[in-house]
Amino acid sequence: MIPFKLTEEYLAEIEQLIDNQQDGQLSALLAEVHYADVAEIINELDEDHATYLIKLLDSEKTSETLTELDVDVREAILANLSAKEIAGELDELDTDDAADIIGELPKNMVQEVISELEDREHAKHIVDLLRYDENSAGGLMAKELVKVNENWNVLTCVKEMRAQAENVTRVHSIYVVDDEGKLKGRLSLKDLLTTSTKTHISEVYIPKVDAVNVNEKPEEVAKIMSKYDLEAIPVVDEIGRLVGRITIDDIVDVIREEAEKDYQLAAGISQDVEADDSIWDLTRARLPWLFLGLLGGVGAAAIMGGFETLMSDYGVLFFFTPLIAAMAGNVGVQSSAIMVQGLANDDLKGSITGRLIKEMLLALLNGTVLASILLFFTWLWKGSFLTSLAISISLITVTVVAGIIGTFIPLFLHKRGIDPAIATGPFITTSNDIFGILIYFSIAKVILGI
Amino acid sequence: MIPFKLTEEYLAEIEQLIDNQQDGQLSALLAEVHYADVAEIINELDEDHATYLIKLLDSEKTSETLTELDVDVREAILANLSAKEIAGELDELDTDDAADIIGELPKNMVQEVISELEDREHAKHIVDLLRYDENSAGGLMAKELVKVNENWNVLTCVKEMRAQAENVTRVHSIYVVDDEGKLKGRLSLKDLLTTSTKTHISEVYIPKVDAVNVNEKPEEVAKIMSKYDLEAIPVVDEIGRLVGRITIDDIVDVIREEAEKDYQLAAGISQDVEADDSIWDLTRARLPWLFLGLLGGVGAAAIMGGFETLMSDYGVLFFFTPLIAAMAGNVGVQSSAIMVQGLANDDLKGSITGRLIKEMLLALLNGTVLASILLFFTWLWKGSFLTSLAISISLITVTVVAGIIGTFIPLFLHKRGIDPAIATGPFITTSNDIFGILIYFSIAKVILGI
Repeated sequence: MIPFKLTEEYLAEIEQLIDNQQDGQLSALLAEVHYADVAEIINELDEDHATYLIKLLDSEKTSETLTELDVDVREAILANLSAKEIAGELDELDTDDAADIIGELPKNMVQEVISELEDREHAKHIVDLLRYDENSAGGLMAKELVKVNENWNVLTCVKEMRAQAENVTRVHSIYVVDDEGKLKGRLSLKDLLTTSTKTHISEVYIPKVDAVNVNEKPEEVAKIMSKYDLEAIPVVDEIGRLVGRITIDDIVDVIREEAEKDYQLAAGISQDVEADDSIWDLTRARLPWLFLGLLGGVGAAAIMGGFETLMSDYGVLFFFTPLIAAMAGNVGVQSSAIMVQGLANDDLKGSITGRLIKEMLLALLNGTVLASILLFFTWLWKGSFLTSLAISISLITVTVVAGIIGTFIPLFLHKRGIDPAIATGPFITTSNDIFGILIYFSIAKVILGI
Repeated sequence: MIPFKLTEEYLAEIEQLIDNQQDGQLSALLAEVHYADVAEIINELDEDHATYLIKLLDSEKTSETLTELDVDVREAILANLSAKEIAGELDELDTDDAADIIGELPKNMVQEVISELEDREHAKHIVDLLRYDENSAGGLMAKELVKVNENWNVLTCVKEMRAQAENVTRVHSIYVVDDEGKLKGRLSLKDLLTTSTKTHISEVYIPKVDAVNVNEKPEEVAKIMSKYDLEAIPVVDEIGRLVGRITIDDIVDVIREEAEKDYQLAAGISQDVEADDSIWDLTRARLPWLFLGLLGGVGAAAIMGGFETLMSDYGVLFFFTPLIAAMAGNVGVQSSAIMVQGLANDDLKGSITGRLIKEMLLALLNGTVLASILLFFTWLWKGSFLTSLAISISLITVTVVAGIIGTFIPLFLHKRGIDPAIATGPFITTSNDIFGILIYFSIAKVILGI
């Protein structure tokens, strides 16, 4: 399969067809294009062209296209549609996607759109979903699932299942509930088909089924589903009633977004920006971290000001401050990144003390290797062994301290319930810059006997 | 569902049971534990205990447990098993997992293990899979799938499918091939069940099916499957023959690993280490990047050496070198991270020049804000407006240059076919440190008229 590749020519052709209102040709051209690719096209069109296309195409395709659009593009298009038109799109969508879109609408539109939904059962489900926090299993789940009552017999069950399955794109499991709607287990299709039609479900179902609580964090759901290789998981409320189902495709999105967020935090970018966002959005996402860096730099400058008297005789010490700061920053980022990943994957074993000692030894090893090389270089360059030794020993100390700080801060934040990913990047580099420079000059002073 | 949590007490209990050879109790204790959790337990046991447990438990469970173990633990356990025992485990596994494990065995064992496999059809499939590059769709796919010939009639088809489906845990799709084994399309279960048994498959199948080439990169497969929300995708060889199938659970692993690799590269860690790896492995993964940082620091020191004469009158300039280096590094990392993500997600639109100009404007905006704050601070601190102005204007210039470098390098590497993720972290910070310091002193010299 050759993935769809959007070219400038193709885009120009579509714009031209829209301008000339050649609806038949447009429909024909896009008939075979996947809705995810149509979304890619629409993301690149201006608002008027985009709206035209959404109104033109079949709502079966456009509804799915809407779910794949960039948020700002979707908002702009929806603002051009009437409540009835929006409801028409939502009628085609699964409840989870429909609820997500309604959640983005201006408050005054929500009521109107919901009242225009044709399928009242669907509308009820969507309204149910709206009350869940976006950042929870409830916010991720869909209402589409196949469930049977434990008191039914096989015949009723098969009949009911047929009706339910019509609304469910992919039936992963048949869930069994009791009269109160509490999840009791699941049913194997094979058992169902090989049992007498009069048998009660309670006699044939499998009483063991993994489920998550409706308040569970999406990252936890992702962890469970990927650990146990599940393609779908039922969601239960506080008293165990089956309220929805999460499928693996939504979890893939959670994993991707989680990874991107951590990556951006490590790079000093507040989450949720893309290269194509506006300069203003990008500035807001980056400036706070840069400001933190500025504070660190000013702090380092102030510390050096305190050692100003060394400048006349030991000016060479000042040449190595960027090196010291860089090493402290790099070691800190390495240590914290390893910790953040270990914490995210739950694979940190053993005690905190053990971990700090290990990180110290590691930093000591790396620091000694690097300091030896540096000693050789500075001695050759400046000819003063004592100064060179002072710089190198300081480097080792700074490396060890940086490693400890980089290990400790994520652990500390994690214990406090704060996302440790925030501690990587600028946060660690800045604090390590300051500590590094302070330690460096203090040790140099002692060794040089000043 | 409460995820399994491995405690020290639980682990101690298991070790005790193993030491006392209380096999019955061990089996009972672990009977209800998921294989992924058993793997977590075994990862923490020493080699003898681990081997004992693997030999004791039912091979239906242990085979799956083996696939979930850490690589080094698995290697150690397999070294304690005979070829016949290993083959017994592999007979229980899907072909893709079995091939992965065989790929890790010492060369002299491979032949022996394969000859001990009981199911010869299974053995043939595993051998087929061994010839594919690990880093390709062929290396990811399994041979388990349901396929029917377009020339069969529905009756034959249903009979054949039953036999095939026995080996397939989850049937996602029924694939249709011609006499040469070329993938022609897929079959809907509904159509199959509502058609006369004498109808030929060629009359009812859907001729449209997404497939990937066996040489496709795993990241590309992941992109396609997550974009189009696929739970399984067929794999075809160079002439279009159906050779395997990739399922979403393997793709979830690819996405996770890819994200971890990029994250570690950005943090200056060569890929594939975990917090619990040995100090030696961790050193090898980190030292090269730190050495790069050392070179950068030495370069910066050498540059400052060239401006040594400024020290007596303008010593304050030297106080701000860590600040300049940090800002150059931070801006560079921000720009490159955004580019790396944009390239990975294929969502960079527009020209390179446009992108560089945007990044320049962004850096100019951020730089000006920060420089104004810095100007105010240094003026207050040192009282010399001209020196403060020189530092601030240098900061703006450095920020802009760092932004351009951070944008350009990933683009350049990507064009050359090199993974741009390597350009984030230490690589960018080091080059920006050197450029930053050089630009800083050069501009300061001009402004101060020295």
